[in-house]
Parts: sequence; structure tokens; C-alpha cells
Amino acid sequence: MEKEFAKIIEQLSKITSNNYKKDFLLTWEKTEDELKQTFLVAEALRLLRTQNISTRCFDSGLAISNFRDNSTRTRFSFASAANLLGLEVQDLDEKTSQIAHGETVRETANMISFMADFIGIRDDMFLGEGDKYQRQVGQALDEGFSEGVLEQRPGIINLQSDIDHPTQSMSDFLHLINHFGGIENLKGKKVAMTWAYSPSYGKPLSVPQGVIGLFTRFGMEVDLAYPEGYDLISETEELAAKQAKQSGGKFRKISSMEEAFKNADIVYPKSWAPFSVMQERTSLLLKKDVAGLDALEKRCLDNNAKHKDWECTEDKMKLTKNQNALYLHCLPADISGVSCKQGEVQASVFEKYKVPLYKQAGYKPYIIAAMMLNYQFKNPHKVLKNLYKNESERIKF
Amino acid sequence: MEKEFAKIIEQLSKITSNNYKKDFLLTWEKTEDELKQTFLVAEALRLLRTQNISTRCFDSGLAISNFRDNSTRTRFSFASAANLLGLEVQDLDEKTSQIAHGETVRETANMISFMADFIGIRDDMFLGEGDKYQRQVGQALDEGFSEGVLEQRPGIINLQSDIDHPTQSMSDFLHLINHFGGIENLKGKKVAMTWAYSPSYGKPLSVPQGVIGLFTRFGMEVDLAYPEGYDLISETEELAAKQAKQSGGKFRKISSMEEAFKNADIVYPKSWAPFSVMQERTSLLLKKDVAGLDALEKRCLDNNAKHKDWECTEDKMKLTKNQNALYLHCLPADISGVSCKQGEVQASVFEKYKVPLYKQAGYKPYIIAAMMLNYQFKNPHKVLKNLYKNESERIKF
Amino acid sequence: MEKEFAKIIEQLSKITSNNYKKDFLLTWEKTEDELKQTFLVAEALRLLRTQNISTRCFDSGLAISNFRDNSTRTRFSFASAANLLGLEVQDLDEKTSQIAHGETVRETANMISFMADFIGIRDDMFLGEGDKYQRQVGQALDEGFSEGVLEQRPGIINLQSDIDHPTQSMSDFLHLINHFGGIENLKGKKVAMTWAYSPSYGKPLSVPQGVIGLFTRFGMEVDLAYPEGYDLISETEELAAKQAKQSGGKFRKISSMEEAFKNADIVYPKSWAPFSVMQERTSLLLKKDVAGLDALEKRCLDNNAKHKDWECTEDKMKLTKNQNALYLHCLPADISGVSCKQGEVQASVFEKYKVPLYKQAGYKPYIIAAMMLNYQFKNPHKVLKNLYKNESERIKF
Repeated sequence: MEKEFAKIIEQLSKITSNNYKKDFLLTWEKTEDELKQTFLVAEALRLLRTQNISTRCFDSGLAISNFRDNSTRTRFSFASAANLLGLEVQDLDEKTSQIAHGETVRETANMISFMADFIGIRDDMFLGEGDKYQRQVGQALDEGFSEGVLEQRPGIINLQSDIDHPTQSMSDFLHLINHFGGIENLKGKKVAMTWAYSPSYGKPLSVPQGVIGLFTRFGMEVDLAYPEGYDLISETEELAAKQAKQSGGKFRKISSMEEAFKNADIVYPKSWAPFSVMQERTSLLLKKDVAGLDALEKRCLDNNAKHKDWECTEDKMKLTKNQNALYLHCLPADISGVSCKQGEVQASVFEKYKVPLYKQAGYKPYIIAAMMLNYQFKNPHKVLKNLYKNESERIKF
Repeated sequence: MEKEFAKIIEQLSKITSNNYKKDFLLTWEKTEDELKQTFLVAEALRLLRTQNISTRCFDSGLAISNFRDNSTRTRFSFASAANLLGLEVQDLDEKTSQIAHGETVRETANMISFMADFIGIRDDMFLGEGDKYQRQVGQALDEGFSEGVLEQRPGIINLQSDIDHPTQSMSDFLHLINHFGGIENLKGKKVAMTWAYSPSYGKPLSVPQGVIGLFTRFGMEVDLAYPEGYDLISETEELAAKQAKQSGGKFRKISSMEEAFKNADIVYPKSWAPFSVMQERTSLLLKKDVAGLDALEKRCLDNNAKHKDWECTEDKMKLTKNQNALYLHCLPADISGVSCKQGEVQASVFEKYKVPLYKQAGYKPYIIAAMMLNYQFKNPHKVLKNLYKNESERIKF
Repeated sequence: MEKEFAKIIEQLSKITSNNYKKDFLLTWEKTEDELKQTFLVAEALRLLRTQNISTRCFDSGLAISNFRDNSTRTRFSFASAANLLGLEVQDLDEKTSQIAHGETVRETANMISFMADFIGIRDDMFLGEGDKYQRQVGQALDEGFSEGVLEQRPGIINLQSDIDHPTQSMSDFLHLINHFGGIENLKGKKVAMTWAYSPSYGKPLSVPQGVIGLFTRFGMEVDLAYPEGYDLISETEELAAKQAKQSGGKFRKISSMEEAFKNADIVYPKSWAPFSVMQERTSLLLKKDVAGLDALEKRCLDNNAKHKDWECTEDKMKLTKNQNALYLHCLPADISGVSCKQGEVQASVFEKYKVPLYKQAGYKPYIIAAMMLNYQFKNPHKVLKNLYKNESERIKF
């Protein structure tokens, strides 16, 4: 532990980062160093906790969660992260069906923030709305703080927007770092981020968007594969291509799951709704056109059903590097014969990767806590060193 | 800070107060000194927090919130106050539509209180019921404590009843104290507490009741203005008159918004439902007479609509002292052209006062925390001095 | 205090217990010493709290509550216990109507547990399901911990299953220990655990099951009385008989309330649904047979109504030892003329025992906290001694 911890602290001390007092909304707004700082702090917090060393940096304070869509694992991750640092979670129950308007956003943002240190927001239902809403909250907090309404400016953590899902993609990536023995070992590794069939509809784009937006930053070779018509937001696809080039990696868009799996080190088969469907859905939701929504759902499910062969099977896994690629999923997966008749993944494949999948999910509380710590403190490595030196026990006696 | 804090401590040390172990239900049951103690402790807690000094007085303990009506800002204020002192909030979800009966109140009050230090109650829906309910809870706790069922007697904080809304009126008043540079400067200041038009219905009386019940205590000149038929509870109006006389202030009931605004230092235009309507509504609710309630709502909205000219406009603001009165509102306001077609206040007036309005709201967590601290400790100034001396950081490192 | 506390510590130090890292699901899976350890630790925690000594053993950590059925008093008891030890409660909102399947249970159990120290589960709706579900969660946690997914193995506390309600029966029993001045004084005391009439339907069996399963462990003479057809689970009835024999007590099944009350030291009249009805109900619920459920309810209520004479009256109380047996109930009771027209107990009997009844309920937070502490620490008496020596105040200053 001592050596491993010291190594992390040393790496952290060399990083120039601008995470301090900056919200975490999209990974592609952060520099590579700022992302690395997040991974390193997450790992340091994990080391401290496994050694029963308390990581409370707050004696009191609130972390507000604003889930405008349902969630279990992200909600628990946020609560765990807050608790790990000494903050208490307070839930804001906003109606999920409402799209908040400027005045209300501004006022509510201030009203809940008098003693808030963080606000975690999930708002992934409406394309073109989620990220916009988080920025509106951010601006309201900036104003509230500069005008002396707020005594501190709470940090915002994107717990999933219409565009990105950084706490997910960062957890996924930290899992890869640990699995492959270091971030430097990910250079040149081939990832297949592919669409997969699901009997459900309207799954957000933010997971695949987050993956191609992040994994192309560190020299990986990313294949994005989907059937015709299942495009992500085009700007993000272009961004991924640009980033891959800059980092010495690769980015391809292809339309075959098999092609993507060929020689892949990592596969991430996951269903999503096409960008165009999400756009249409948003406009129908805004018009409250129930009949239109029903028709869209039917059309979309029919369309999905044409691509039932996009399933992660044992056979397809044989195409991967040494027939042994690492399988990723954000969970819960649609497992054929288990959670649905036919879905994203064969039961035997899922079962084989159950333990690494659960570990992948287990990084999320630490990633969120790291985002918080980096927002709050200018020099996270000093804070971590103090926590280590203090050796205050999490479980006493 | 040091000087300002020392001044507060000195003032506090001279106050004779009976807040210790006394519930905070109605401001007019408290002496002027007891109210001053609350303001001073709130300010002291605010000073400590802005200096990053922890104000935890509890190592563990529960603060129970019982919202029998919806709330965002008061709920967050209560949670913030509890957290500031080291208590954890636990919500009691009682059906809002139920009027609890004696036996249930007595039992539930004891069952939730074994480890509770405070219970915050909002019960403002039924005229003649809210305050009564809070006192029933209080009596049950008294009995439970004296009979040895409870190891401590939790304090009750009125988070809005049918009669008073002390955490609101006290926050409003602390805002005035700070705005005008001291409680002594409020003597002789003219306040216009006036009804205002709103396209909604059934807004509780407790805010205007709370304002006239508190502001007449400290020598202010209070004009209460409303259209014919929009009376508050007559006992409270009489009380306000009596209090104004005792404190060297004034209290007038008038029926013109313009008249109230004339030369006012402070204006508080706010919609409410007439006392008689609230009475009728309570009896219909008890009978579950849906048709009757619908008819009442229609009649009430029609009646409201006759008074659309009761709007706080730029023109009316020109009537005030130096055309520059301080505008108050408990929020959220019905802003014309923003949150409704026509409402309580013109958008440009609201916008001009946005920052002071938000600051006004920001006092509520401190007011609630002060109510808690004064209930818990015989000598609040000693506790505050200890917190200051300890200099334990809220955010560490 | 000092002497009383020292006595408890001494008794604890002599106990050989296997509570450490073992879930608390059924009292009859625990040895007498393990049960005694729980009572003693509960009492020690109560002594410390009444002396304003902090009993925080956790600096951070989560206690997850999973109520698959409604609850007020157990929910507050769990929250109180968690807070008493320094843990924060996080609620898992699972749909109460769902019966979770293997895959989902396994995954959810891991996903919520990354930073969880305890999971409290109430699942009493479906006969044959509640206890099974708790064991499935336990197995998932065992696997997650051994596979390195979880850094700690959270302890499970049964907050009511289809079979047992240990936090209730243990609180009831601790009440008896204190009322009769020691566990040794309960030997030979006669308890009447009897069915009682209620105008409601579907009340779980777990309370009477828990009582006969626990009270027969310590040499008490237990009469279980119910009208024909209102059987408990036969295995539990047999177990009670066996345990009574082993402990030097007695266990009788009879069909007369009067007979049970005769010369009883303690009476526990409480309604429940017959075992066979609960079985039928479970199968109808699984089939979502609404008409069948309605018919069952009607039939069951009609059947209940034949036994309105099973009411705990003043007259029946006169049959008890010195006409003065201790009346127990888990609350809320169906009180004749108060909470219903006719019910389990006459109003005057209930009123007479109100204070001891409330005290009985007040042990639950301490029992739950003791279960947690015994799970977490190998040597609870050392932890308690340290807490006592530290003398850190719960309410400071």
C-alpha cells in the first residue's frame, strides 16, 4: 500500500490541472491531465478506504442529487461518494416530465444551494435539453455566487446528460487501466463499441457517446459499429475521429458487429436509440403527442427487430483477440433468456464476465468522489497525503 | 470577523431568554428578547460558516421533517440547518390529505422520537388544524418524556402552519435587519404588506399573518392592504394592532395598494386566499365534497380576477420612499409574463430585486439552525464561543 | 451508571458468540449466548446514550434500507440505529409488488453494496419468499466479497420476513427482561400469545412466529392460542415445542383466549391471517388474480368476524396473574372504539398499558444497533469500553 500510494501521490504532484472549481460536464472539455488526475485521485481514495483510513474532507455539507430520470446504481454511487467525503445527500424531486424554463432554473438553483457543496444532475431524457439544463444551473450558480447570494459555488457533476455520461465512461476506463495494468498499456488496444439488439426502446445515446468521446483520448483504436440509421450525434462522431488522430489512435465507423469484434481487445455491445429517433421523440414529448409517441415506439421496435443478429454471442467473442476480449457493459444488460427472450448478450458470455462487470461498476463511487475532491481542492495530492498521515479510521476501534 | 462576532456574543450574553426547551410555533408567543436571540444566533452561525468554522454541536442525532404539504425551499432549509449542526434528516411521509386524530398523533409522535432531537412540521392546508396538530404533537412529546418513554424531548419547529410561518417571517426580518443596518434602524420604517393578484387559488394565509404578527413587534409602521373580503384571521389583525401600539409602531388596515405603497420603505405584495374561503375549503375538504371544491375554486378565481390591478408595477413602486422601497417576497412569485400571464409583480420589478430576494431566502437555514440551537442549549453564546475557539474546520485541509 | 455498565461489560466479556460477520435473519439460528450478547449490547448502548456519550463507531458508511412493504416505526428504528453508530441511511426503492428473480437480486445486491456496511430488509408480503429473498441477497454478497467485487461484506438485518420478525421479538423480549428485572426472572413466567380479532386482513404471521420462536428459548411457558384454522407455519410451532422442552419451559397450542390468559404473567393478543390464507394469497398475487384476491379478502373478513369475541378486555385481563399481566403489542393496535369499531383490544386496557407499550417499542433502535455492532466487531465489549473511556459527547458543550 505505502509504495503504491506514494507513487500515485508523486504522479499527482506533477499534474497541471484546471479541475479546481470547474464543473464536470463532458470529458472532452477536460485535458488529458485533468482526466488522469481524476483517475489517480479515485485510485488513491480506494486505497485509503481499503486500509480503513477515513477520507472525510467535510465536517458538514450537502450533496444534492437531482435525478430527472430513474436510477439505482448512479444514485447509490453518488450517495456513496458524498458519504465517503463527509457530505450528506439531499434529493431534489423534480418532476421528470417537466422541461424547466430559465426563470425557474435560476431560482431553484439558488434556493437549494445555500449550503450545498455539490449538485449531481441526471437529465438524459430530452435530446438537446440535458446538457443545456446543466449549464443553465451552472450559470445560475455562478451569478448567485458572484452576487453574494451563495457563500460557496457548488460544483456540478453530470450524472448523465443527453450528450455524455462521464461518471460511467470514466469508471469504464479506470476499469481498463487496472485490467491492463496502466493507462500507458491502453495505447493501441482495439475497442469495439457496438450497437446491440434490445427489445426495449429509447435507451439514451450518452453511454456510447461517452465511450467514443473518452476512449479516443488515449491512443486506443476505437471501432464504432451500428446498423444503418443508428447514428450517434454527428458532432461527437467527428470529435472522436479528431481526438483519435491527435492521440495516435484510430477511429472507424462501420456497420458490422463481426468486423468490429475482429481482433478486439475490448468489446462494449450496448443498445441505443438512433439519434433521429431521439430527436423525434423529444419533439413529440414536448407536444405531449401520446399517439405519436406510441407510433414511434412501435416503428422503432419493429426496426430494432430487423437487427436481432446484433447479439454478443460466444461465436462472435471467438473473433476477438485470443478469443478473449474483455466484455464491458454499463449494466443492467438485456441478457438473452434471462432478462428478456433475446437481447444484447448471450447468457453464457455475460456469466463469464460477471465479476469484471461488477468491478467495472464498482469504480463509479470513487470516480464521483474524485470529481468532487478535485473540484474542491486546488492541490488534491496534498489533501490525500494529509488523509494518509492523519490515519483517522473509517471504522473505529 | 473577530470584532463582529465578539459584538454578537456580547449582545447575546445580555439576553434573558426562555427559548431553552420551548418549541418555536408562533413568533407572538416569544418575547422580543427571544426573537432577538434567534436573529443573533443565526448571524453568529453565518459568520462562523463563512469563516469555514464547523458548527457541529451534535455528533449524532435525527431531525425529522414532517411535510404535510409540498415544499422545496423550506425542506432544503431544514435539511441544511440540521446538517450544519450535525443532525441527519429523516423524512416522515404522512399522507397530506389525512387529518390525524388524537390517538394516532400521540402514538406516532412517540414512535418517531426515540432518537430525535427535532421535529419540523409543515401543516398549512386546513384552517384550524395545522397549529392544533403541532400542539398535539408537542403534548404527546411532553407526556412521552415525562413518562420515561423518550430519553430526550425533541423540539418542534413550525415550518408553516395555518396561522404563522415563523421561519419565513424571521428570515424576512433578518434580511431587513441586515439591509437597514441593525434592528434599531427598523423603528418607524413603513412596510406595505399587501394582497396581490394571482391566477392561482388557495394560497395559505400564514405568510401575511406571519409578517404582521412579527413586524409590528419592533416599532415598524405596518400597512395591511387587501381588497374587500380578503381578510386575514381577525384575531391576528387585532394582535398586530395591539403589538404595534406597544412597540411604538403603527398598524393600519386599508383597501388600496397605492395607499399602502405611498412612502413605504418596504413592500411585500403577495397573494392569499381570503380567510372565509379557507374556512369553507377546510369544511369541504373534510366532507370530501369534490364538486363543492371545484365550485369554490371557480368562484374564488373569478373573484380574484376582479382585482388584477393589485399588481406590483414600476408605477406603483414610484409611490414608495425615494421611489426605491425594498421589495420582499417569500418566493416563488407569480411574475407577469414569466411564470403566468398576469400576476403579483411586473417582471422588471422582480428582476431589479432578484439578488436581495435570493438573499432574503438565504437566511432561512440559519434562522432554523438558530431555533434549534436555542432550544437545545441554555446558553447559546457559550456554545458559539466554544465553536469559535475550537476552530474546527468545516472543509478540512 | 458506572456500576451497571461495568456489570454489562463483564457479562459480555464471558460470552462466546458467533455473531461476528453473521447475518441476523432468524432468532432460532442464533445460540442463547448470541441472543444474550444482543440484549446486553443494546442495553450498553442505551446506557451510553442516556449519559450523552457518543457511540459512533463509523466515521462514514452507508446503511441501506430495503422496505418491500410499508413501515414507519421499523424504518425510524433502523434510521436511528444507523445514525447512532455513525452510518447514513440510503433507501432502496424497490417496487413492493415485484418478486425479484435470481439474476436481478444478485446484480442489485452488488450494485448497492460497494460502500454499504449494512442492508436492512423488510419483505413480509409473500409466504415462502421473504426469507428466501434475504438469503439470496446474502449469497450474492458472499460471492461479491469473495470475488473481490466488494471491499467489505455488508451485514443483513431482517427487518421482517414472512417467517420471523427478530427486531420486534428481541425488542419485546428486552422489554420483558427490564420489566421483570433480569433474564433469569423470566424462567417459568407464563406468556399468552393469542390471536385477536381485527376488521382488517392479511396481517403477516411474522410477529406471533417471532414471539413463539424466541420466548421458548429462555424457559418461559408459552401458550399459543387461536381459533380453528388460524395456524402458524407448522414447522415453527414444532420448533417452539422443541425449544421449550430444551430450555425447561413449556409450549401449548390451545383454542381459547380465556384459557391462555388464565394466570398469565404476560399477554400478547394480536391479529394475524391464517397460514393457509397467506399461502393462497401469495399464489393469487403471483397470478395477479385481482378477482380471486377480492374474493379471498371477503371470505377472510367474514371468517374473522366469527371470532369477534377474541378481544383483550378488562374482563379477560382479570383472569391473568394477580389480574395484572403485562400487556404487549407490536403496535399499531386495532383499539375498539378508537382505531376501529371493534378490534384487538378494549380502549381502557390499551390506555392502561400505553406507557409500557411505548417503552417496548423504544428498545427497537437499540436492538438493531446491537445487531450491527455485533456483526461488525469481534469483541463488542472492548468497543463499548473504548466508547465509555473516550467519553466523546453526543451533544457537545
